[in-house]
Amino acid sequence: MIRVSRRYTFSAAHVLAREDWDQARNVEIYGKCANPSGHGHNYEVWVTLRGELDPKTGRLVPLDVLDAIVQERVVARLDHCFLNRDVDAFKDIVPTAENIARHIWDVLKGEFAPVTLDRIRLVETRNNSVEYSEE
Amino acid sequence: MIRVSRRYTFSAAHVLAREDWDQARNVEIYGKCANPSGHGHNYEVWVTLRGELDPKTGRLVPLDVLDAIVQERVVARLDHCFLNRDVDAFKDIVPTAENIARHIWDVLKGEFAPVTLDRIRLVETRNNSVEYSEE
Amino acid sequence: MIRVSRRYTFSAAHVLAREDWDQARNVEIYGKCANPSGHGHNYEVWVTLRGELDPKTGRLVPLDVLDAIVQERVVARLDHCFLNRDVDAFKDIVPTAENIARHIWDVLKGEFAPVTLDRIRLVETRNNSVEYSEE
Amino acid sequence: MIRVSRRYTFSAAHVLAREDWDQARNVEIYGKCANPSGHGHNYEVWVTLRGELDPKTGRLVPLDVLDAIVQERVVARLDHCFLNRDVDAFKDIVPTAENIARHIWDVLKGEFAPVTLDRIRLVETRNNSVEYSEE
Amino acid sequence: MIRVSRRYTFSAAHVLAREDWDQARNVEIYGKCANPSGHGHNYEVWVTLRGELDPKTGRLVPLDVLDAIVQERVVARLDHCFLNRDVDAFKDIVPTAENIARHIWDVLKGEFAPVTLDRIRLVETRNNSVEYSEE
Amino acid sequence: MIRVSRRYTFSAAHVLAREDWDQARNVEIYGKCANPSGHGHNYEVWVTLRGELDPKTGRLVPLDVLDAIVQERVVARLDHCFLNRDVDAFKDIVPTAENIARHIWDVLKGEFAPVTLDRIRLVETRNNSVEYSEE
Repeated sequence: MIRVSRRYTFSAAHVLAREDWDQARNVEIYGKCANPSGHGHNYEVWVTLRGELDPKTGRLVPLDVLDAIVQERVVARLDHCFLNRDVDAFKDIVPTAENIARHIWDVLKGEFAPVTLDRIRLVETRNNSVEYSEE
Repeated sequence: MIRVSRRYTFSAAHVLAREDWDQARNVEIYGKCANPSGHGHNYEVWVTLRGELDPKTGRLVPLDVLDAIVQERVVARLDHCFLNRDVDAFKDIVPTAENIARHIWDVLKGEFAPVTLDRIRLVETRNNSVEYSEE
Repeated sequence: MIRVSRRYTFSAAHVLAREDWDQARNVEIYGKCANPSGHGHNYEVWVTLRGELDPKTGRLVPLDVLDAIVQERVVARLDHCFLNRDVDAFKDIVPTAENIARHIWDVLKGEFAPVTLDRIRLVETRNNSVEYSEE
Repeated sequence: MIRVSRRYTFSAAHVLAREDWDQARNVEIYGKCANPSGHGHNYEVWVTLRGELDPKTGRLVPLDVLDAIVQERVVARLDHCFLNRDVDAFKDIVPTAENIARHIWDVLKGEFAPVTLDRIRLVETRNNSVEYSEE
Repeated sequence: MIRVSRRYTFSAAHVLAREDWDQARNVEIYGKCANPSGHGHNYEVWVTLRGELDPKTGRLVPLDVLDAIVQERVVARLDHCFLNRDVDAFKDIVPTAENIARHIWDVLKGEFAPVTLDRIRLVETRNNSVEYSEE
Repeated sequence: MIRVSRRYTFSAAHVLAREDWDQARNVEIYGKCANPSGHGHNYEVWVTLRGELDPKTGRLVPLDVLDAIVQERVVARLDHCFLNRDVDAFKDIVPTAENIARHIWDVLKGEFAPVTLDRIRLVETRNNSVEYSEE
């Protein structure tokens, strides 16, 4: 079994807060991440695919195809954005690292057949990462 | 399935040697790590939890709770210590990276229910890491 | 001559745009960083001091004093903020990496006498850093 | 279950191209990696083993034994080489990251009994890695 | 004084050997880097500029201009090349890290007026870097 | 002007405390680093030399000569040691990062003529580094 992982980056701002909660409750749950002005991160996304090698090319997938899909569907839509305001998926969902990883999984999941999306790893800070997968 | 990983650090000293072996045997098994004066490392611990997202908060666990538990049960007890001398768990067990990872697993395992401790990864040097899990 | 460097981090959002320019001009100068919603970064600040060692302690400065000053004057004021909105210094100055570094320099400069502030290095992304000094 | 991972490095050159394809087809598949002069990388190999701790030593394997095997069978044969020209295994197989990882797996697989080779992770650039395993 | 540093990368192969020396002498001077097949690296180049901030933009240089110059004059000419064969500057000069750094300095030096090229730092491996400057 | 920097590593333990001070005073000055059992670090040393390139070889110094000197005079004497106990230089001098850097400077300073030792950078943790030089 071969897995290929490729790193992409984007810089974005977010607020962790629910509109149907008051600010005291938001601060209780999200701490300083609930500051309503927002704050930001350099995000790293590792996209991991798994499957069988193509015996002719010795590759799992053509990297230019992978790059084009992730660039169009993920990076171009999230980079240099304020996630809560600029991205429809986060209009009603708090853009925690967990939800961002799941969002990227949902967007990319069916795109690489017959190769399988194995997992999405989102690194939010140097101390903090989240991994989404089906197993 | 979501996994959340968080990094903690501590600096500690240790000796790799068994008291019931003579120094020649300890050097044979542990090399220069058996120097009886001890030597030290900057350790990195990645604590990984897995489970289901809380649909309301979009989080797997409250990070302040996770931080408080790991800080109290792991970092405060190991940081700036000489593991063989200052930590009861290593009075009779050689503090190899493998045993330190297992010790942290044992200390943290039941602490996060209903969320599950997925694995402990201990990075001892930039060339060396150990991962403890149940699978 | 000894120099001591210590790393601090903060996460913040910003917009690169001047209010007295229209958006077309802001985009021309700042590219996608001019998105009015804002975006964000994990910033790293390396504070470097230089001077003579204290022969008794073998230290240039007490690290707890250094930490307390930088924590209070820099990290607590910038972390988890939207720089343009939450920080007075950036009300009329665009928070480019260059201006953030100069701001930190100005805030810290006189604080460590008789030790000298040597330089401020601000790392905005893994490809991008800025250094402010007097020489 | 314990896993121990250890990092090794080698620097090598390669060309991604098949001799039975013309250059236009090689460029179509491999892009600029098909430049017939070759280009190169600093490769990192993480060798991961899994098994049960030796209760006496607190180690999974003696690291000097692991180092000697990987040094002799992998690093000494690949470091400072042009993979297509100097390494028999790549005479007829294109040395993609995927094929290099599989080659290292094949070379090391039976070497550590009763401990099991868990996976080989090959890092080709800071954006790119490949993992080979049986599961 | 402000300095801005920006990181670029390229992957290339090289041989360290002089044609007017026999192979024994080349091995004596360059060790395994003299293997005539060649080997390769992922190079990182940090380009550092210094000067005065533009008070209107808060920038030292427009980053898109800097990127375009370095991309055209450095990365496009060195990336995925065999330096000794594909790059005229290294036809008669051994492409050591020192000479590559000096070459990049020479190519970029006059390009940023009125801003000054401060230094070129070339990272060849994680243990090895070279810095070229006029002071 | 060319500068060549090369990274070396060693793992060691130390205590920050003066024998002519009582423990309360040592804790006041050195905090938890004064724990008398000791603690430890993975140290990184960057040795930087400066001078003129040898026009024939394109090198500042032969790296094998540099490695041999640093290995013998620094790494072999500090690695896997308890600095206060095993290293004469720290019998009467507290092994702070500052003093370790100065010690390495003193040991290496005259060794590379006609090339000049430019600076010693000692990285004690990922947040902490010290640089010793004559300017």
